[in-house]
Amino acid sequence: MNVLAIGAHPDDIEYGCGGTLTRYAQRGHELYLFVASDGARGGDAAVRRSEQEEAAVILGARQVFWGGYNDTELPLHRELIDRLEDVIREVRPTMIFVNFPDDTHQDHRHLAQAATSATRYVPNFLFYEVPSTQNFAANCYTDIAKVLDKKLAALEAHRSQVAKTNIEDLTILELAVAAANFRGIQARVKFAEAFHSVRLLLDS
Amino acid sequence: MNVLAIGAHPDDIEYGCGGTLTRYAQRGHELYLFVASDGARGGDAAVRRSEQEEAAVILGARQVFWGGYNDTELPLHRELIDRLEDVIREVRPTMIFVNFPDDTHQDHRHLAQAATSATRYVPNFLFYEVPSTQNFAANCYTDIAKVLDKKLAALEAHRSQVAKTNIEDLTILELAVAAANFRGIQARVKFAEAFHSVRLLLDS
Amino acid sequence: MNVLAIGAHPDDIEYGCGGTLTRYAQRGHELYLFVASDGARGGDAAVRRSEQEEAAVILGARQVFWGGYNDTELPLHRELIDRLEDVIREVRPTMIFVNFPDDTHQDHRHLAQAATSATRYVPNFLFYEVPSTQNFAANCYTDIAKVLDKKLAALEAHRSQVAKTNIEDLTILELAVAAANFRGIQARVKFAEAFHSVRLLLDS
Amino acid sequence: MNVLAIGAHPDDIEYGCGGTLTRYAQRGHELYLFVASDGARGGDAAVRRSEQEEAAVILGARQVFWGGYNDTELPLHRELIDRLEDVIREVRPTMIFVNFPDDTHQDHRHLAQAATSATRYVPNFLFYEVPSTQNFAANCYTDIAKVLDKKLAALEAHRSQVAKTNIEDLTILELAVAAANFRGIQARVKFAEAFHSVRLLLDS
Amino acid sequence: MNVLAIGAHPDDIEYGCGGTLTRYAQRGHELYLFVASDGARGGDAAVRRSEQEEAAVILGARQVFWGGYNDTELPLHRELIDRLEDVIREVRPTMIFVNFPDDTHQDHRHLAQAATSATRYVPNFLFYEVPSTQNFAANCYTDIAKVLDKKLAALEAHRSQVAKTNIEDLTILELAVAAANFRGIQARVKFAEAFHSVRLLLDS
Amino acid sequence: MNVLAIGAHPDDIEYGCGGTLTRYAQRGHELYLFVASDGARGGDAAVRRSEQEEAAVILGARQVFWGGYNDTELPLHRELIDRLEDVIREVRPTMIFVNFPDDTHQDHRHLAQAATSATRYVPNFLFYEVPSTQNFAANCYTDIAKVLDKKLAALEAHRSQVAKTNIEDLTILELAVAAANFRGIQARVKFAEAFHSVRLLLDS
Repeated sequence: MNVLAIGAHPDDIEYGCGGTLTRYAQRGHELYLFVASDGARGGDAAVRRSEQEEAAVILGARQVFWGGYNDTELPLHRELIDRLEDVIREVRPTMIFVNFPDDTHQDHRHLAQAATSATRYVPNFLFYEVPSTQNFAANCYTDIAKVLDKKLAALEAHRSQVAKTNIEDLTILELAVAAANFRGIQARVKFAEAFHSVRLLLDS
Repeated sequence: MNVLAIGAHPDDIEYGCGGTLTRYAQRGHELYLFVASDGARGGDAAVRRSEQEEAAVILGARQVFWGGYNDTELPLHRELIDRLEDVIREVRPTMIFVNFPDDTHQDHRHLAQAATSATRYVPNFLFYEVPSTQNFAANCYTDIAKVLDKKLAALEAHRSQVAKTNIEDLTILELAVAAANFRGIQARVKFAEAFHSVRLLLDS
Repeated sequence: MNVLAIGAHPDDIEYGCGGTLTRYAQRGHELYLFVASDGARGGDAAVRRSEQEEAAVILGARQVFWGGYNDTELPLHRELIDRLEDVIREVRPTMIFVNFPDDTHQDHRHLAQAATSATRYVPNFLFYEVPSTQNFAANCYTDIAKVLDKKLAALEAHRSQVAKTNIEDLTILELAVAAANFRGIQARVKFAEAFHSVRLLLDS
Repeated sequence: MNVLAIGAHPDDIEYGCGGTLTRYAQRGHELYLFVASDGARGGDAAVRRSEQEEAAVILGARQVFWGGYNDTELPLHRELIDRLEDVIREVRPTMIFVNFPDDTHQDHRHLAQAATSATRYVPNFLFYEVPSTQNFAANCYTDIAKVLDKKLAALEAHRSQVAKTNIEDLTILELAVAAANFRGIQARVKFAEAFHSVRLLLDS
Repeated sequence: MNVLAIGAHPDDIEYGCGGTLTRYAQRGHELYLFVASDGARGGDAAVRRSEQEEAAVILGARQVFWGGYNDTELPLHRELIDRLEDVIREVRPTMIFVNFPDDTHQDHRHLAQAATSATRYVPNFLFYEVPSTQNFAANCYTDIAKVLDKKLAALEAHRSQVAKTNIEDLTILELAVAAANFRGIQARVKFAEAFHSVRLLLDS
Repeated sequence: MNVLAIGAHPDDIEYGCGGTLTRYAQRGHELYLFVASDGARGGDAAVRRSEQEEAAVILGARQVFWGGYNDTELPLHRELIDRLEDVIREVRPTMIFVNFPDDTHQDHRHLAQAATSATRYVPNFLFYEVPSTQNFAANCYTDIAKVLDKKLAALEAHRSQVAKTNIEDLTILELAVAAANFRGIQARVKFAEAFHSVRLLLDS
């Protein structure tokens, strides 16, 4: 199947569902990324774009679609929905991952809203969590023990961001491992990624 | 994999997840049922037991475990948990379905609580809905279009219950079809069963 | 009393509360509709307007107010609130129905937000559900068994939309009947419409 | 219609819905009360019973049914449900009010659970709030401005309880007036009682 | 510590957290206010500004920052976030209070959203309630019994607004006292203000 | 002030709030523990009791109260409430911590219910999380960076339990550190414990 992961900024996707995407790619599914903004408020735009492209290769993605929006200015109106619909028409995904709508970052909130509209005919639609997510309600999980190294490598590709957790002495890599343990115990495995599925067809 | 469906009374399982179970059985998974009570308040106990056994055959289940509890008297304390743990130890399921905890029937509420404890090490744990369920929060679905006839046949096996919807002129079969359409549109298919997953490992 | 039903597009009102409105009109209450957009993305604008006017006659409404907004572009800012306040000032409703705020369609979300503001002094304010609604929390109901035919006739007036459910072989009429059964069982009647009341004065 | 108000202890009903009941009685509806316990942990049992009977007269109730349970010991199992079903069979109510299930008092929690089962075929089922209620989610209201004096008189009939708010210098009467203002502003009236309806048939 | 209270219009802050702010100021903390709009739709702008400045003196605030936005037109996009970030950079608060996001007034909703973003690095972030707030979920409280007079004095400074509750015969002062009693009983004190903390560091 | 931490089994308290308790004890507050069961289903009862007593010393607690209940059999009825009330009367706490009510372990659920009743007059009442907690809604936090070693030492005192996480190769110590990072980022610190406060008086 075709899987589309949507993120507001470079490294959102890797943090939220990098392990899950790696597993899908390893099993032969076609993986595509849509990154709405180049994240120029958090680093040099060109650097962040190239970090994202490198991370996409590590995940095994076929292509990164760039939204071209200004960092911190993702809009709430129809234009972003249209842009996402264009990508969805091209990729024809049956599964979509995106930022959770309750988040301290306005871009994450707005992207989640727009994706809720644009993905309305896609059968599997799930939200992932990032460090700025609030009140996340996990209801499904992926066991990422065997691909944790890949997830961390993909996160590490975002070299300019690794130390930017706003907590001294805590890298995004350490935080990702901690989160994987925290969510792992809920999924009865050692390392997991957690999701809030809006709708998901059981593979029965 | 081994799948265990748990219901408070005969026909709860068929209404809540009969289509999904049929699909799992058709794909070669081993299907087991646990029915906590013989439903003697809603009909003759022997009749209801034999109707349930017949429905189990239609679903393709290997075995029905009977809890032996009195209808309307499912307990909240440890004994019911122990009984469920015994069955889980024997069946070794990786996926479990059970009644939703918010329901007007005390047996459904109590069974959901007990199952929450007994299934704590099972990776996939989902609640299904029945007509007495309240405030159901669906987050995953199964497309049951191809097995709707089987689901209805399994429900019809509960001959003594088919007309008992408390609504004149509305059979449980009609209601099941209506619910399948209602949930289908949410899942972007014609007929669906809806679930509230507590935890579910994505098949990634 | 005066009742105002607000919908984003032609046929939202009929699907969400057409039966309830029919009952109010039959009992002598004055019924008004506000339709924010002509729905030009889902069909010819002139056709959809005339279908809506025809449906309004079937429901027994006195007048349809047209918002004149572009389909898919209902705004989040004050202008839409002002427009609704103008209509409320003219109609002086004591009861208002509108789309639910959690929905895959941005117009439904935005309209629900705007209506939450514009209706702030109206004592009875309720949300209805349509097929794109998510996580609907029903807390009150209308028995529509005696007016189901009227509701279906009003839906059928939207000829250009009847087959557009995005599910092959499932018309909006079939879906409306299924939803009426599904909500009916919750209300202990055969056919019901469900509402989420924000505030409602009990007729005590 | 017949209205049944259910309370765990003497004065729960008067605090939670005394104004609403007064209005129903004034309009000619038949009003019945069920009080599960005589409240012997909060005062002399005989005194509290007679206070409750006096309050019932003030509200205009036809009869008080006494559950006879020990204060603080309302059970979670079927016996209480059976007792409520007996009363419902006798009274044949179309509307039922009861304590909210999230409350610091175990009797209120258990009674709400039991009533959820026992009232399953009654079309209008609402929860009221008392001072020990937590996380109350109001979704409908009654304007009690014209009957506030009656509500306060009914509360005052519980003479042994009036000063027992656990707050020095704050009587239950003052608290009831404060709550009526607090909920009134939400209902756009001066004094209101608030309810959480589980299901309510709109009087359309 | 430095405390920043944020309100959409003059008198929001006083109603929502005037008692709490008074206590902080009395204990030597530095208190700052940000008022997004001069409230020109509810009265003369110059009058409302001067009322707000007077109220700030009563609370013991050091300074009022004015957002300069048009009443009813607070934006959802980044500009308001930027403005709040400027103030936060200047004030360096460790505790922030703001309007709750579920409210019938669009300015309150939009301000709550913007503040959620702008305050993302501030350790203590709490929402307060005002009369137009909906579905408020209180989880912490302040005992304001000793400063209720100050709170009322600060509210009274907004002379042009005192009678504007949309309820005849109910002043904002009476409503504030009623709310303080209603929330007080939940906090086990006579008068309280209630808050919904998003995050709060326990003073352990 | 006096602080009382309540846990169902040995090591629940240390996992859920060991860091927070250490900080309170270090600042001179009086710390008491109530452990409902000796946890005999998870190890030798005498060993677990002595581990708990050792952990209590590490936390700086004055005394451990033992409930004496059988592991997995904590009751839902009044007896447990009475037992907790006895301890509360003796300790006179102004702050209480206890297991969260949504949990896969029935003892945690039942204890949370009983504590909700028994603590009804205590002004500060908070739930903590443990690995079996579900759907935890954090709304306040403690920075435990400076006392993490103490928390881990207290957990390590429960030698018989350290490896029992049901995840191969993951000790309770590693999990506690991961959870502290995961909750830390939400509190804007490196290591935190998270709480769901039911009510908490702001230290204003």
